[in-house]
Formats: sequence, structure tokens, C-alpha cells
Amino acid sequence: MAIELWDLAGAEPERRFSPYCWRVKLALRHKDLPFATIPWRFIEKDRIAFSGQGKVPVIRDGGKMVFDSWAIATYLEDAYPDRPSLFGGAGGRALGRFIVDWADAAVMGGVFPMIVADVHAHLDPDNQAYFRATREKILGKSLEEAQGDRDSRLAAFRATLTPLRRMLRHQPFLAGAEAAWPDYVVFSVFQWARCISAYRLLAEDDPVHAWRERLLDLFDGEARRAIGYAA
Amino acid sequence: MAIELWDLAGAEPERRFSPYCWRVKLALRHKDLPFATIPWRFIEKDRIAFSGQGKVPVIRDGGKMVFDSWAIATYLEDAYPDRPSLFGGAGGRALGRFIVDWADAAVMGGVFPMIVADVHAHLDPDNQAYFRATREKILGKSLEEAQGDRDSRLAAFRATLTPLRRMLRHQPFLAGAEAAWPDYVVFSVFQWARCISAYRLLAEDDPVHAWRERLLDLFDGEARRAIGYAA
Repeated sequence: MAIELWDLAGAEPERRFSPYCWRVKLALRHKDLPFATIPWRFIEKDRIAFSGQGKVPVIRDGGKMVFDSWAIATYLEDAYPDRPSLFGGAGGRALGRFIVDWADAAVMGGVFPMIVADVHAHLDPDNQAYFRATREKILGKSLEEAQGDRDSRLAAFRATLTPLRRMLRHQPFLAGAEAAWPDYVVFSVFQWARCISAYRLLAEDDPVHAWRERLLDLFDGEARRAIGYAA
Repeated sequence: MAIELWDLAGAEPERRFSPYCWRVKLALRHKDLPFATIPWRFIEKDRIAFSGQGKVPVIRDGGKMVFDSWAIATYLEDAYPDRPSLFGGAGGRALGRFIVDWADAAVMGGVFPMIVADVHAHLDPDNQAYFRATREKILGKSLEEAQGDRDSRLAAFRATLTPLRRMLRHQPFLAGAEAAWPDYVVFSVFQWARCISAYRLLAEDDPVHAWRERLLDLFDGEARRAIGYAA
């Protein structure tokens, strides 16, 4: 039976923008495991109450339930050791955790206020109310104020990508010659933005842009074909 | 025959502060390879001319010469595969390159202007002149101006360590249960500062401080015993 994945959706059921869900979808494709996604919205806590918490991604694989994208990645790696590796060994698994923390703190932390009103624009009214209340509490300002001066923060955001840009002088992917978990993690932040916002985060001559293009092409263009913008 | 390592020294021959040389020294200890260091100063380009370039670390291992800390790490991993691994597999090697780029761009980029005049203070007059001329060109201001307002930049520097701090909730070292190459790379930046400056980069209750203490203890306190400050 295919693995089931509860996947965050916008007002349109096929707009799937969660970066954490994208990590899992690409990890499942990497492992070549069949899966079916189930659209889910922020306020539908009851529909994933079986997981004992209120966020996606959640997967059900036969009798096994796992939530949290990192927990899902390590579960898949251990449950399907004969499939292509997400981590490339113990060292890659350990640093794969650091990449999650770098992507979330440095990359997502920069992107979040630049697209937060665009996320809101793609939700239905009930989810908009939930999203606005919870995110404005985090931001300490309105979604529109946070996003309003994004141009002034773009150069600083691009500077946080310097380590990735420098690494790309040496190898085509974070995971080396081929993409794997660390690439999916960092890419998922750009894919989140792409699904929800026309804002151009990367200059076309940026090596990070070329790397993102390579990720968009993977798995028959899985990420490129997703409903979103061509930013 | 022991591996020879040309190792940057201050006016005092035993003050060895180069972060790139520290990475190599800890990698050599990790591999349990005997080595002898040769003190070297910035302006002694002629003494390492045999390497075809002008910076340390340079190692000579029998008939083999290698320069650049990343090149040395990959050389040691490949030349001594039966010794403890620096990378923990292909995934760890690939991400080990990213860690170099993160440590150098984000961590060292933050530390450099905060200790640059302290580095200068530990050099002999000829090396001071070289260091001042080359570093002031990079900084676009005097060493003293760069270091002068370091207190105002300390909070931002500590914020760049957020990914490391978050990772430490999950595991004791970047490399997982035991320290390896990625830990030596990031630690080397703190060890550089420690060898040359009394400035306190980390708060005592910071998990990164506790991680640094664990690194200082490794290999019979190799890094802790080095001439420096207790910062």
C-alpha cells in the first residue's frame, strides 16, 4: 500500500506549499516509494489528531505513523535501507541534522517575512484568520508590514546564502555529485516561496539559482510542475 | 617518518593560532598520525615556496606535499582509510565541504573583525606590517577601528551560531555522537580566537560554549594546552 502523506494545501487543494512537506515528498521520490498525498489545512487539527500533535507532514506507512520531517527522513532511511540513501552514511546523517537547522534558521528565517503576506493571500478565509493571528504574534507586526519592506532585506538574505554559493564551486549538490536530503531541505525553502509568491529571491546569474534549477528538474520535474510561480 | 606540518606562529614560536592549521592538527590527531609542526610566519613565503603557493597549512608526508586544509583533510581520509574516519562516509564528506564554507563565511567572517587587532598584537614588527597592510585592505578600515566597536556586533555574531545551537539539542557534535572533521572546522575558528584574544565570544550558558569545552578536552586537551587565553 502506498504511504499516505498529509500535505499542507492552500485554498486551492492542489497548491501544496509547505517546505517541510516538500522535504518529505522529495525524500519519498528519492527512495522511489509510492505515496499518496492528502490535502490538509492549518486549522484541521482534528484530522491529524491521531498523530498526537497538530502539524504536517504526517505519514502513515502501513501500521506506522511518523510526524516531523526530520523524523520522517530518518524513519525512511532506516525502514528502507536498500533504497537510495538520503544521507550517504553516518556522517551525512549527522550533518543532515545541521542542514535542517541552518535551512530553518538562516534561509527560512530570511524568506519568511518576505513572503508571509503572499502565503496569506492563498488561503481560505478561516485559514487566513488563523495564519494572521499566529504569524503576526511571531513577527510582532502585521503581515503586510513585514513583507512591505522586503526589497530592503533582499541583499542581506542573499548574503546568508554565501556558504551554499561557495560550496557550489566545488560540487553540484550539497550531498555531492547527486542531490539527496540536504539539497531537498534547503531547496524546500525556495519551493515554498515558489508555490506561493512571485517575488524573485535569487538573481538569475547566481549559482544558487542554477542549483535550484537542477532541483526543479529532478524526478521528472516534480517540483517544477507544482502549482506556483515561475520566480 | 612523522608528517611535517608548517604551522603559523606568532612572535612567540609556540603561539600557533591559524584556524586552518588547527583543523589539520586535530584531523591528524583524529587519525592518530604522528606529526611534527614547523613554526612559520606570514612573510616567510620562501620557506614554503616548494608548495607552489604562499599559505599554510602545508604538509609533507613522505614524498607527498599537500596544501590547503580541505585538500589535506581529503588526502588524509583517502591515504589512511583504515584510521578513524574524518567524514563518516560520502555524505559526510560532501557536507564537510559545506561546513568549511559555512564556518569561513558566517563564523570566521563574524570573528575576524572582532579579534583582528589582537592578532596584530601577537606578531613581530615585520609580520605586523604585512598583516596590517593586507588586512586593512580587506577591512577597508584600520585594524583598531574594525575591532573597536566589537561589542556592538557581538549579539549579531552569536545569532549566526543559531543553527549550531539548535543542532546541539539533538546530538553532542556536528559529526554525531563523536567529534570529527565538521567539529574541528567550526571549533578551529574559536581556537584561533582563543590563542590570540581574551575577548569573550560566547556566553557561559550557551550550549555552543559547552560544545567548545568538549572540543578543548579532546586528545588529552591538545587545544586547551595551547598557548592562548582562557576566554
